Amino acid sequence: MALLGFALGVCQAAEPVKVLIAYSSETGNTEKMARAAAEGVRQVEGEAVLRRVTEVTKQDLEQADAIMLGSPVHMGDVAAEMRAALVAWSGGDFGFWRSRALQNKVGAVFATGGAPSNGKEFTMMSMALALLQYGMVLVTPYGGLGASATTGIPEAEKGVDERELTEARELGKRAAFIAGRMKNGP
Amino acid sequence: MALLGFALGVCQAAEPVKVLIAYSSETGNTEKMARAAAEGVRQVEGEAVLRRVTEVTKQDLEQADAIMLGSPVHMGDVAAEMRAALVAWSGGDFGFWRSRALQNKVGAVFATGGAPSNGKEFTMMSMALALLQYGMVLVTPYGGLGASATTGIPEAEKGVDERELTEARELGKRAAFIAGRMKNGP
Amino acid sequence: MALLGFALGVCQAAEPVKVLIAYSSETGNTEKMARAAAEGVRQVEGEAVLRRVTEVTKQDLEQADAIMLGSPVHMGDVAAEMRAALVAWSGGDFGFWRSRALQNKVGAVFATGGAPSNGKEFTMMSMALALLQYGMVLVTPYGGLGASATTGIPEAEKGVDERELTEARELGKRAAFIAGRMKNGP
Amino acid sequence: MALLGFALGVCQAAEPVKVLIAYSSETGNTEKMARAAAEGVRQVEGEAVLRRVTEVTKQDLEQADAIMLGSPVHMGDVAAEMRAALVAWSGGDFGFWRSRALQNKVGAVFATGGAPSNGKEFTMMSMALALLQYGMVLVTPYGGLGASATTGIPEAEKGVDERELTEARELGKRAAFIAGRMKNGP
Repeated sequence: MALLGFALGVCQAAEPVKVLIAYSSETGNTEKMARAAAEGVRQVEGEAVLRRVTEVTKQDLEQADAIMLGSPVHMGDVAAEMRAALVAWSGGDFGFWRSRALQNKVGAVFATGGAPSNGKEFTMMSMALALLQYGMVLVTPYGGLGASATTGIPEAEKGVDERELTEARELGKRAAFIAGRMKNGP
Repeated sequence: MALLGFALGVCQAAEPVKVLIAYSSETGNTEKMARAAAEGVRQVEGEAVLRRVTEVTKQDLEQADAIMLGSPVHMGDVAAEMRAALVAWSGGDFGFWRSRALQNKVGAVFATGGAPSNGKEFTMMSMALALLQYGMVLVTPYGGLGASATTGIPEAEKGVDERELTEARELGKRAAFIAGRMKNGP
Repeated sequence: MALLGFALGVCQAAEPVKVLIAYSSETGNTEKMARAAAEGVRQVEGEAVLRRVTEVTKQDLEQADAIMLGSPVHMGDVAAEMRAALVAWSGGDFGFWRSRALQNKVGAVFATGGAPSNGKEFTMMSMALALLQYGMVLVTPYGGLGASATTGIPEAEKGVDERELTEARELGKRAAFIAGRMKNGP
Repeated sequence: MALLGFALGVCQAAEPVKVLIAYSSETGNTEKMARAAAEGVRQVEGEAVLRRVTEVTKQDLEQADAIMLGSPVHMGDVAAEMRAALVAWSGGDFGFWRSRALQNKVGAVFATGGAPSNGKEFTMMSMALALLQYGMVLVTPYGGLGASATTGIPEAEKGVDERELTEARELGKRAAFIAGRMKNGP
């Protein structure tokens, strides 16, 4: 029976998944989306680690089962510090290009931008492409490429609204769910 | 011990994964890549189903654990019949937008084009975006968005070469591997 | 003085520019954007020709100084009939790939979609890439890739609003302005 | 007759166009493409100014009739220093977002990358989108989004070949030609 318990344990005990949420934020909008994503992760018993992308450590990345990236739109595309981080992780102390240590982790993305259609998709795509380069599998909200918030239209100071935070939460749940399935089976 | 055997069986018996490879091809180049992808799937004990995208049935899509899509580049982007199929699957007899029946399946893409940088990436992205809209998770070759072949440069009749077929095979293996992990656990 | 008049005439008489606006529309939203674009063209003394993309003739394309394309988002990307038309124009009776008859014309794009960030950018990019393949020069609204309308958010039946129609009008003006400058000088 | 001479002068004297070529380069491949683009500009009597993107001044940008940007592919997308420059030009001492001083200039892009289809298109698109955000008109080589070189395939040390340099030269010519037409008429 001990053996049986062990066998069942091996196949059923769902290890909790760890989700790193790395973001760039100037006005606080993208940070709000990041916090909502973290709530979503926790709602499905996942462990969420929030980090500014400039402060992400090698260990943060290695320990994560899923990596979520968030960026504001700057001149139609991703924030330069996010782009710089995604390149930096490939070499130097991180060395993830050669080690392939990020392969098979789960990736997901989110973005905020002032106007409805002036760069949020391209910003999300830019981050998604880098995650895919590292061999990660990409997970999205149903019907989209990532969670997003339109912060300046119709009113200049709209910010992030509840519907958008819900989308970020759902994406957090979904990243944790798929990472769990990759880690522990269905 | 019977109980133990049952328990181990539940958790270990890897059900074979089914990979649908749906492609558009005029000159035969994309079809060659599709056949190589199928070889890759079979190399890891997966079941590969090859279909012209215009002949894909609702059942083909429902039964697949992974869906791979391949298209030539036409005027810088995806073939119109591939685009039309991806839209058609959302409604009508397929009805996959509302049923969400494709959600959590694994997706992967490949493309062929005459010139090195004139649309293969955008063609792959177009197909990938549609798969992600349906809630699928996207899998790529290491370091890229999909498998691809440059068929007209440097010589006009270069066609698909062995390196490119190898990439398609690897992508087939990888789609089957990730689909297996989603289906049967690690 | 007759000679002088002739000389001035040669350099100053601005020939009116002709702008073809070819669109795909099911619910009427993209057609509304197309009509607004046509208004913009006429506001700067341009001649606007409105056509469903399936009804565009070879002559429509040849006579245009600028070509504006509009499409709804279908499953995250451009409408299949728009994609099919852009490919069809390259060969057959049109033959624009070899003739290069569209080269140096001005291009611009617009899109409508239900959700803020689920495909309008990619839809605009897909059309823009095809126009660029034909050697056209691409013109956009300030701060974006094209004019766009978010038709289903926040209310399901939001449709196209005045701000969005204004953007389409401005894009029409701008396409006509740049086409005029290419045709008649500054 | 003096008046006539003046009139003819006003309409015919083609002012030379100035093309700024701003690039990022680590291994020298993108710099080679930049030099080829400059040759193309000079072949049509244009004035070419070559600058590392980190050294571009406000005056360089203001004085240019056309701006060409070149970047290597880093982890599937544009170099971080190019992205950072494109954002920096919008505010601070440059202030081009509010001044709109880049509007109506001509833009063109080029990229180099090791593999055929792993980011050159996305890198070119990223730069092109930023130029379009600033209100510039985008010019491309016939059949593509920009000039590009595949530097590592089939041989690891392939570098930039003559066909690719020719494409960069042609793009330089074309940017100067369209900028001339915008400046001096057809």
